[in-house]
Parts: sequence; C-alpha cells; structure tokens
Amino acid sequence: MSNILSQLMTTAQLIEQIHLKKSFLCIGLDVDLEKIPPHLRNQEDPIFAFNKAIIDATHHLCVAYKPNTAFYEAYGIKGWKSLEKTIKYINEKHPEIFTIADAKRGDIGNTSSMYAKAFFEDLAFDSVTVAPYMGKDSVEPFLAFKNKHTILLALTSNQGAFDFQTKSVDGKELYKQVLETSKSWKNAENLLYVVGATKAEYFKEIRKIVPTSFLLVPGVGAQGGSLQEVCKYGMTDTIGLLINSSRGIIYASNTTDFATAAAKKAKELQLEMEEIMTQHL
Amino acid sequence: MSNILSQLMTTAQLIEQIHLKKSFLCIGLDVDLEKIPPHLRNQEDPIFAFNKAIIDATHHLCVAYKPNTAFYEAYGIKGWKSLEKTIKYINEKHPEIFTIADAKRGDIGNTSSMYAKAFFEDLAFDSVTVAPYMGKDSVEPFLAFKNKHTILLALTSNQGAFDFQTKSVDGKELYKQVLETSKSWKNAENLLYVVGATKAEYFKEIRKIVPTSFLLVPGVGAQGGSLQEVCKYGMTDTIGLLINSSRGIIYASNTTDFATAAAKKAKELQLEMEEIMTQHL
Repeated sequence: MSNILSQLMTTAQLIEQIHLKKSFLCIGLDVDLEKIPPHLRNQEDPIFAFNKAIIDATHHLCVAYKPNTAFYEAYGIKGWKSLEKTIKYINEKHPEIFTIADAKRGDIGNTSSMYAKAFFEDLAFDSVTVAPYMGKDSVEPFLAFKNKHTILLALTSNQGAFDFQTKSVDGKELYKQVLETSKSWKNAENLLYVVGATKAEYFKEIRKIVPTSFLLVPGVGAQGGSLQEVCKYGMTDTIGLLINSSRGIIYASNTTDFATAAAKKAKELQLEMEEIMTQHL
Repeated sequence: MSNILSQLMTTAQLIEQIHLKKSFLCIGLDVDLEKIPPHLRNQEDPIFAFNKAIIDATHHLCVAYKPNTAFYEAYGIKGWKSLEKTIKYINEKHPEIFTIADAKRGDIGNTSSMYAKAFFEDLAFDSVTVAPYMGKDSVEPFLAFKNKHTILLALTSNQGAFDFQTKSVDGKELYKQVLETSKSWKNAENLLYVVGATKAEYFKEIRKIVPTSFLLVPGVGAQGGSLQEVCKYGMTDTIGLLINSSRGIIYASNTTDFATAAAKKAKELQLEMEEIMTQHL
C-alpha cells in the first residue's frame, strides 16, 4: 500500500510543481558539441558547463529536464561523465524537477532489467523512454521499479512514424494497439507515453484510450507542432502533458548570452502555458 | 562504386571467415558481475578480464562477438570502460571477427546519427542492432555509414514478440512489413535482421522476403530454439546466418576453468555447424 502511495506521489508532486510554476515545460538537453557557444569549448567538460548554465537559467520555468542519451554516448566515456554530472547536478540542486532519460531502450526481460538498473539506480533518473516493439516482457522490467516511471513510445513526431505506427493492426492503428495493450501490463500505473505534437488531431483519439496518463510531447517548435492545438485535445483536469522543447530553447543563441537567451525562450513558452492553464482550469 | 564494393566486401569477408572456421557462431558477451566466477571479482576490471579470457579461448570457434550494451551501461562509466576495452581488444587481436553492438537503438534522424557515431566511430563496432518502431528516418542515419552494418529487429525471440510483431498489419504480420518496407530504404544493402530461433518455422516465410540477407539469430540453447530447424529453413547458399549464443557459452562454468568450459561449449556448436554446412553446401 505504501508503495502504491509513493508511486502515485511522484505524479502528484509533478502536478503540484506544474501548478506552482504555471508551466508544464520539459527542456531537452540534447547537447551537440558543434552547436554550443565556442567560448565553452575550452572548459574541462564543455557539455556539463553548457547544461549547468542552461539549468541555472531555466529551472524556475520548467518542471522536467530530458537529456537524450545519444548525444552523450556519441562522446564515449567523456560523454557519460557529462551525463552523470548533469543528472547529479539536477538531483542535488533541484530535486523537485522530474528527470527523463530519453534513451528509447527495450530488450528481452533480463536485459531490460539491466537498462532499468542503469537509468533508475546508477544514474538516478525518475523516468526513461522505452520502445514497445519487443512487447510486454521487454517493458515490465522497467515498470517493476517503485517510484520510477516508464515513458513508452506511442506516436513519435518524425516522418517515419507513418511507416508502422499509424498502420492498421487488426483494424486499429499500431500506436493505439500499443496504448491499449500496455494498460494491461503489470504496474501499468507507472506508464507515461510519448506522443508527438506534429499530429495534434490524434490527441482526441488518444485521450479515449488513456484519459488520464501523462503524455510527453516532443515536436512543438522546431518540428512544427502547435502548443495550442495539443492542449486543446490533450490536456486533462490534472494537465497530463509535458511539452518538450530542445533545440528551440538551448540553441536560442550561440554567444556568451546563450543561457539568458534560453531562459527568454523558455519564459515565452511558460507564459503561453500559464495562459492556457488559466483558460483550461 | 568503390564504396559499394567495400560495403559488399565486409559481408564477403564474413562469408570467407565462416568457410575458414566452418562456423557461423556469434558469442554474446552479456556479462553480469553476479554471474562471473568469484575469483575474477578482485581484478581491476572484472568484466574485461572475463571477456578477455572468453575471447582468448573462443576466437577460433566463432565469427562474431556481440556485447549487449545494457550489461555495460548498468555499471555506469566503469561499464563503458569495460565495453571500450573489450571492443578495442577484439579489433586489435582479431580484426577478422565481426563485431555487433547489441544496443537496440533508434530515434529521430539527427539523434540516430549520434548513436551511429557512438557505435561506429567512437567504439568502432562493425554493426549495431536497431529497433524499427520509429521507421525509415530513424534507421537510415545508421545505414549511411560506409562499411558498417545495421541489424534491424524483425522477429525477436521473447514472448513479447507476439504482442505486436506477429499481429496482422494490412493483412501481413508486422515483422514482415518491417522486412518488406526496410528493403526500400537508402543503403538497404547494409541491412541484416534479427530473427529469433524460437520460431524456426517462420524462417521459410522470411526467406521469401529477404532471400539473401544475413540474419542474426538469438534464442538457440537457453531460449529453446533448434539449430537444425533454423538452418533447415533459414540457410542460404552463402550461409546467411549468424547464430548467437550467450549464456549457454559464457556461463558454462563458474570456476577457474570457465574459459575452457566456454570453449568446450563453443566447440560443440561449431562442430554441429560444420556438419550442417557439409550437408547443406
């Protein structure tokens, strides 16, 4: 009972933070060494220096940070050190912020357990993104972790989403089958879903299947999705949305004022969110 | 033209090695610290010490090594160091051996490029496993690398494979749609596919779609698949199969003789493969 309660608490805390900050913004920390301001490149750990400045400037405007692991793995052990320092910094300085390892993992049972251990225990993220292709026993090892969340890919924001995800499976689109099926998995209450903003009209259908689940929504901004449209169809009584923006915020400027410029962009989104929340609730 | 030729060369070299060693065995290096012989735990890097001993004892019996990245990530930076040392050791000592990063990655285009960079450039693997759920633009960045191979999940060996992969999509099972669709992607000649051995009867159908592609086959042994059955339906004129065994080989013994015991298990499989090749060719 206490376990269930503490699992629910995490989402409750997230909702509390959303109301406190009047923001449901998630900032994607997808840091490409070739895109960060040149003056940072002399630092011992340029990626962490960049992230630290972004976090210091934006933590009051967002409720979640989402480093995409690919951008860290690309730099090998150095990159993993930057990732480790980044998550540690967030957890120490801003424990109220929800952290997402955007890793899109998924493997057979005993192997998924190792991934879960990597992200939930070793790195101490609150959540991790997981791909559904290998089915139930590839996802349940992630769901087994108490007070941790698994964010399942449902409908992604890229063009390739139309290759398989929107194809009809036994009369229903694959991403809907994924949403439906996942609800029967053990500890399904720990599930959130990735749903791309580029297909706002799909949110209406999605809310029929998962009326209350939190949705992590990439694709607003750089990829062309509309925040207003997503909220119109996807927002619930307890918000139920985490809107991600990566490049639009973190690369707002390429000079010494990059953190201030990022905060300005984040503030614009936060204000838009505040207005939507006022109208909606 | 020279690019195409050198891409083809890699598979040609693999086929050459298969004939030379009379083996199409891939050994999975899924090293769990809790399962390795206790006497290794005092070593500075127990995982690498274990892998090195396994490689030294088995390299003449197999044509590929496949570390599953989950088992390394679970130990954080230490684990990545072990992975880096392992792939470096294989590439330096046995450059003729095909290396597979079993990572099951996949993300939107620019992010997949970062993963490809991580595994093909930073770690210098010959190939990486990739999940198909996000479609064409999530896989093509991997395929863009010359002389490197992308191993796409088609039909996996776990129970969860029946959740989505075998479901009918527009009248054809999803895994068949994945096989079909992927053939049209740019640089599709760099594709191999994961097909689990636990469903040997499926190989007949699969060979109608991808008659010559190499298939990486997990699930022989520990997961119950039959080598004879897989070869009966899946083998081509140029073999076209890489049969993976992980736990059945590397954990054959838990004492100081573990490497010898692993080699004995690998030898058994190699001899079985030699007999099948003699019958088949």
